[in-house]
Amino acid sequence: MLVNYFHFSFTVSNLERSIDFYTNVIGMKLVGTQIHDQPYTSVQVAFPNAVLKAARLTIDGIPAARSGHLLELIEYVNPRGEPTDTTTNRPGSAHMAFQVDDLLAAYKRMKAQGVRFKSEPVRIMAGPNEGGLTIYFLDPDDITLEMVQPRGS
Amino acid sequence: MLVNYFHFSFTVSNLERSIDFYTNVIGMKLVGTQIHDQPYTSVQVAFPNAVLKAARLTIDGIPAARSGHLLELIEYVNPRGEPTDTTTNRPGSAHMAFQVDDLLAAYKRMKAQGVRFKSEPVRIMAGPNEGGLTIYFLDPDDITLEMVQPRGS
Repeated sequence: MLVNYFHFSFTVSNLERSIDFYTNVIGMKLVGTQIHDQPYTSVQVAFPNAVLKAARLTIDGIPAARSGHLLELIEYVNPRGEPTDTTTNRPGSAHMAFQVDDLLAAYKRMKAQGVRFKSEPVRIMAGPNEGGLTIYFLDPDDITLEMVQPRGS
Repeated sequence: MLVNYFHFSFTVSNLERSIDFYTNVIGMKLVGTQIHDQPYTSVQVAFPNAVLKAARLTIDGIPAARSGHLLELIEYVNPRGEPTDTTTNRPGSAHMAFQVDDLLAAYKRMKAQGVRFKSEPVRIMAGPNEGGLTIYFLDPDDITLEMVQPRGS
């Protein structure tokens, strides 16, 4: 039976660069890193001689899953893969959204840090988040991320 | 400032088929659905005349983010996109992992439901989850999912 979330995971091309982005730009906290190079990992991911570098991240003060983290970043050292097309209308693409308390301030700060945004901040005009703010942006691997500031926060 | 997770999101080709999979096969709970067809959505996702069907899902009994859900599924009705390559070693690819209390039983049940697995159940031999079980499998859009049964559960 399903009992909890364990994590969401993105494959990245350079783990250190992505850890820097998700901690220093997004504000997440690094829980730990691990090299996966044992035979059981090759069986699990279905690549022979797989070598993966992984990082586990969480948000400080927010209860994570029992796993102790909720975002995993993986760099495949072997076999390396070419970037996939992350255009959001393609089935199989993914994005991750974060709640922030001041989207306009975060946008301004991240813009100054060189983060690439898909638009200016957008006011949500319908649905359960009506009145809030949202915006799409990209991580260093063109992975789509989103910030949402709910109405009244 | 970053205050919480909002959601993780997969783009799918057929929302109804995916809702059926994530509820009846995975065991998640549907929170609600929504059509996004207003001008602000086109600005946000950076596609003119965007029309998206979205579903919000959670795990019953597990505190979700303030958003009230943690998994979003989106079908782009316009513009439709071709499937992206979800091979897990490609930067930009993603997966989602769930914690289960009896991985072998879940594997058997889901196998009988026609779910495609990348291997047999795998024993984790190192790291913080040593002694647990894990397995990768695919959703109807070839999105990679994972089940983990931590050691001692």
